[in-house]
Amino acid sequence: MAPFRRLALIGIGLIGSSLARVARRAGLADEIVCSSRREETREKALALGIVDHAFASAADAARGADLVLFCTPVGTYADLSAEIAPVLEPGAILSDVGSVKQAVVRDIGPNVPDGVHFIPGHPIAGTEHSGPESGFAELFQGRWCILTPPPGADADAIARLRAFWEAAGSEVVEMDPAHHDKVLAITSHLPHLIAYTIVGTATDLEESLRSEVIKYSAGGFRDFTRIAASDPVMWRDIFLDNREAVLEMLGRFSEDLAYLQRAIRWGEGDKLHELFTRTRAIRRGIIEARQA
Amino acid sequence: MAPFRRLALIGIGLIGSSLARVARRAGLADEIVCSSRREETREKALALGIVDHAFASAADAARGADLVLFCTPVGTYADLSAEIAPVLEPGAILSDVGSVKQAVVRDIGPNVPDGVHFIPGHPIAGTEHSGPESGFAELFQGRWCILTPPPGADADAIARLRAFWEAAGSEVVEMDPAHHDKVLAITSHLPHLIAYTIVGTATDLEESLRSEVIKYSAGGFRDFTRIAASDPVMWRDIFLDNREAVLEMLGRFSEDLAYLQRAIRWGEGDKLHELFTRTRAIRRGIIEARQA
Repeated sequence: MAPFRRLALIGIGLIGSSLARVARRAGLADEIVCSSRREETREKALALGIVDHAFASAADAARGADLVLFCTPVGTYADLSAEIAPVLEPGAILSDVGSVKQAVVRDIGPNVPDGVHFIPGHPIAGTEHSGPESGFAELFQGRWCILTPPPGADADAIARLRAFWEAAGSEVVEMDPAHHDKVLAITSHLPHLIAYTIVGTATDLEESLRSEVIKYSAGGFRDFTRIAASDPVMWRDIFLDNREAVLEMLGRFSEDLAYLQRAIRWGEGDKLHELFTRTRAIRRGIIEARQA
Repeated sequence: MAPFRRLALIGIGLIGSSLARVARRAGLADEIVCSSRREETREKALALGIVDHAFASAADAARGADLVLFCTPVGTYADLSAEIAPVLEPGAILSDVGSVKQAVVRDIGPNVPDGVHFIPGHPIAGTEHSGPESGFAELFQGRWCILTPPPGADADAIARLRAFWEAAGSEVVEMDPAHHDKVLAITSHLPHLIAYTIVGTATDLEESLRSEVIKYSAGGFRDFTRIAASDPVMWRDIFLDNREAVLEMLGRFSEDLAYLQRAIRWGEGDKLHELFTRTRAIRRGIIEARQA
């Protein structure tokens, strides 16, 4: 018997479709359904054979589901949760995959009916590609999944959701939503903002330079363009919904950058060398932590 | 008969040792020698079997060579070129692999004896690793190599150096040194500076966050740590020697970042979305240009 009767994926893009694939492969639900506003996306999901049904309405997907996962940009969560609230069954688990967690608690929390277990989640996994065709079952393999259960959340529901992610290949940790948002601001949100910025700066160069930026991108720029090719709506919502933590980290970054800028202007090579030596050690830490 | 009699690699780190390997494999020189100030490095190079002789003195390596390549940090070029000038033979080609080109012309140019062909070069290739053991013969395969021959440079010498890089697998282009420095400032130097900065910002976080930065680095930060693990001395020299172009690009970047910062603070999602959509297109350009 599968751990869940009906898995409802609200949104079937990169993450949703990867979850559909791994849930099917690992037998995590008897029935896998999704919703998407776009007909083209629903047709793709059905053609790929990764869901049993694809609905235009989130409520139709969530009806009768014992696990509902929001896999759309976080800016949609408030409306979607209001929409599906009337059909959610007592005992159902409601979760998400959004990259911010305080805003998710703020937007979904008030709409959760009594008896429904609301446990926000965030798999640290993704690629720069979008759409149901870009997903793959191995996306979560060896990746962290952070759960931020609210105080007093049902222990059994947490355990079931944890087992779901573990079956998808993830290592699950629990965290406070505010702490999650701070950690992700520096490990993910700020890097994306910076990558978007520098790629934007390059596109604004005079034409004679711009074509060469693409040609000679292997010098380092290329890594930034991959990050800056991530889904625009998803990332817009993340920055708006984690404003405080992102602005705080951005402030620190800007100060540090100004310090280096001054060192370059005044030819203070020792300051540059000191930092460049320090950052090398961090890479070693990551390689040792087996994340590289 | 090999195209060169004696190839002298001044410095035998990642780039120098990769050149030694590919020159040996492709039969580009009858004899391959190197110099390194550090005894440990010389011993490694000899133990790896990638050079025939390893000298402590650059002049001893350059003596009798018809191709001399500087493969040390650019800050060493002025002294090294003065040191080897007396032993350089007429007809020899003197080149380098430095990531800046105007400063190289400034530092080496005045020391070049009559009859020696000075043709600066820059292969757009590398990894974050250092030392003779980190090189590999395929490093230059499919990569650009930019030559910046001075006005009036000997056409035959340019053709011979070009053929050397092509035999190493590179596609060779010629460029004006000032233009090179501008292009590299945005495609390579600024990305490195930013990566160093953000990794530095992360290391300065309070301890409770810092360990988690490493743990959850897969969210985007990890790509930056790889770049920020590059050789500290080499990169210190690059920033000091391409100061003007780097500060110019840094100024543009900081303005663009401030614009996004303001958009986040004021919740102007449309501005974020507009940029994020634009940057996605650049990535497509790079993929189409087969550099990704």
